[in-house]
Amino acid sequence: MNCTIEPIRWEEDLLLLLDQRYLPHEESLVKVDNLEACHRAINEMVVRGAPCIGFTALFGIVLWIKNQTWEKTDSSNLSQFKDAARYLKTARPTAVNLAFEIDRVVNLLEKDWSVSSRQDLYDKALIFAKYQMELAYESNLSMAKFCLDDITGNNPKGKYNFMTHCNTGHLACGCLGTALGVISYASTVNKVNHVWVDETRPYMQGARLTSYELVKQNISHQVVVEGAASYLMREGKVDAIVVGADRIANNGDTANKIGTSTLAIVANYYNVPFYVIAPTSSFDLSLASGLEIPIELRNSEEILKFKNIPVAPTEAEALNPSFDITPASLISGIVCEKGLITPPFDKNVSKVVNL
Amino acid sequence: MNCTIEPIRWEEDLLLLLDQRYLPHEESLVKVDNLEACHRAINEMVVRGAPCIGFTALFGIVLWIKNQTWEKTDSSNLSQFKDAARYLKTARPTAVNLAFEIDRVVNLLEKDWSVSSRQDLYDKALIFAKYQMELAYESNLSMAKFCLDDITGNNPKGKYNFMTHCNTGHLACGCLGTALGVISYASTVNKVNHVWVDETRPYMQGARLTSYELVKQNISHQVVVEGAASYLMREGKVDAIVVGADRIANNGDTANKIGTSTLAIVANYYNVPFYVIAPTSSFDLSLASGLEIPIELRNSEEILKFKNIPVAPTEAEALNPSFDITPASLISGIVCEKGLITPPFDKNVSKVVNL
Repeated sequence: MNCTIEPIRWEEDLLLLLDQRYLPHEESLVKVDNLEACHRAINEMVVRGAPCIGFTALFGIVLWIKNQTWEKTDSSNLSQFKDAARYLKTARPTAVNLAFEIDRVVNLLEKDWSVSSRQDLYDKALIFAKYQMELAYESNLSMAKFCLDDITGNNPKGKYNFMTHCNTGHLACGCLGTALGVISYASTVNKVNHVWVDETRPYMQGARLTSYELVKQNISHQVVVEGAASYLMREGKVDAIVVGADRIANNGDTANKIGTSTLAIVANYYNVPFYVIAPTSSFDLSLASGLEIPIELRNSEEILKFKNIPVAPTEAEALNPSFDITPASLISGIVCEKGLITPPFDKNVSKVVNL
Repeated sequence: MNCTIEPIRWEEDLLLLLDQRYLPHEESLVKVDNLEACHRAINEMVVRGAPCIGFTALFGIVLWIKNQTWEKTDSSNLSQFKDAARYLKTARPTAVNLAFEIDRVVNLLEKDWSVSSRQDLYDKALIFAKYQMELAYESNLSMAKFCLDDITGNNPKGKYNFMTHCNTGHLACGCLGTALGVISYASTVNKVNHVWVDETRPYMQGARLTSYELVKQNISHQVVVEGAASYLMREGKVDAIVVGADRIANNGDTANKIGTSTLAIVANYYNVPFYVIAPTSSFDLSLASGLEIPIELRNSEEILKFKNIPVAPTEAEALNPSFDITPASLISGIVCEKGLITPPFDKNVSKVVNL
């Protein structure tokens, strides 16, 4: 694993987090050496993106174990350990991934608690944390290869113009990333001509973070407003669009950052291939379709103000849905670490995810 | 003519301009009493929108005549008059409308120059300026009625949810406006339930100016990001979309603010009626199709910075096309002051415009 951008780094018993609140203009590292600092970093959004939040929490557990004064385990320190884990979950109460990762490491360590020393637990937790990041990287790399194979197979040529929405790279998903990982990987095999980064209103993840990652990797790109999607595709300037996913239903309907389905409709109109890239953990096969996915409405201030400067009249209101549903019929391929899923999605999603 | 919002007002030999640079947070009036001040107001964008720039220039000519010390005309003051007119055109050299309006008033006054007094010229120029604004209002009102008739005829119900892009109201086009004029008029006849105002990146004309006009008129509305278009239409929350036009080709292809064709594609996907509203002066029948309309690329800073605060990395670049072409096939109806134009546009546009 050799990453150009490291949002999370473990170095000599210290967790170093790239403070994403100050990107792209300031690259500052937050040093985390105890559980409370880890809680604060997650809570105050030093890290973002479900996978990165999960990894950070795993290292938080390692730090808690490191800082204990006991050497031998007993029922009392097991109970303290569980308290610490519970506390860490409260850093972002709605982040499903956070609770999921913490529960996994708690179960792992609890199993052999009575027969372990503190050093054993520390070693085990650290290996687990590093292994999860490594696994995510392997998974991201597999997805990137599956997706690029399909793009090049369907439209063989030297280099491609990609378009992407929001940020789905190293900063959100750990090394490489999902949709942006396809572009980063394609660049390493010299297949990228240019990348169109839509700015992604209202939070500007595209302009701020995706552009930052592409600058770091020396990948040719330009930021565009979301409204320019039709202009670019009409001019034949987009060969493939890659996006991530928050949740994917059994029939392939995909919930992702607001603006995704608008982009998918435009891609469909111009016959530009539209790919969704997400690990199997983002699939929820219990949902028959996207109709069952509720849409979170966020604070209207995110739209009405920019860096606290009001844009609209003070009397104005906004509606701020944070994501939308892209119907499966608009998607060319869904890529998970087990392979490429093609239509008919209502049959093939469960087939591939359950492999 | 009774306007809720007056971007341009003539009052006792004084031109009062609503300073649009400070909207929506400050309503300040700029007093213009001479040609140079008028030039400055146009040049520094106190007024915007092709029609409003044209009207302002007409009053600038009136002010020049008012401020002369001679009473009788001669070839020398005719030549000074022409110099003044030429100078005023330089305020926004690329604004076609500005030169067009100035040429009209120059021709009008030059015709009878030798047999007129300064007072005659003043009266004539003032009547001409006021008449052009009145004509625009009558034209806007006709368009609003034609458009609303079609909307209510095709889908009879009590009140409608509209969506619009950019700013095409009083502030851009004088009293009422074009696309936003449809909504303002519909509100006066109690046909508006709610308006979705897309913010219109990168210049935010929707969030800043359209929302301001709707607040002023007490019309229920919310600002949304452009990416939310699909979300809103999927939820059935949009009954009709109205937009303006910069130029319309003989086949109905329409150049308008970037994002318009993206919105039209989404509307088409969800079968939401999509109307273009523009006076016949916006039609260029010498253009066979939208392919002949060049797209202006503007400064990338407009995207990369917000109120001078950098958003993207300093190394990032942007592509900033200022408008796009909406293919006629995506348009339900084009409305000009002569009536509603319906498909096939390649036949019907010239038929109606040449009426």
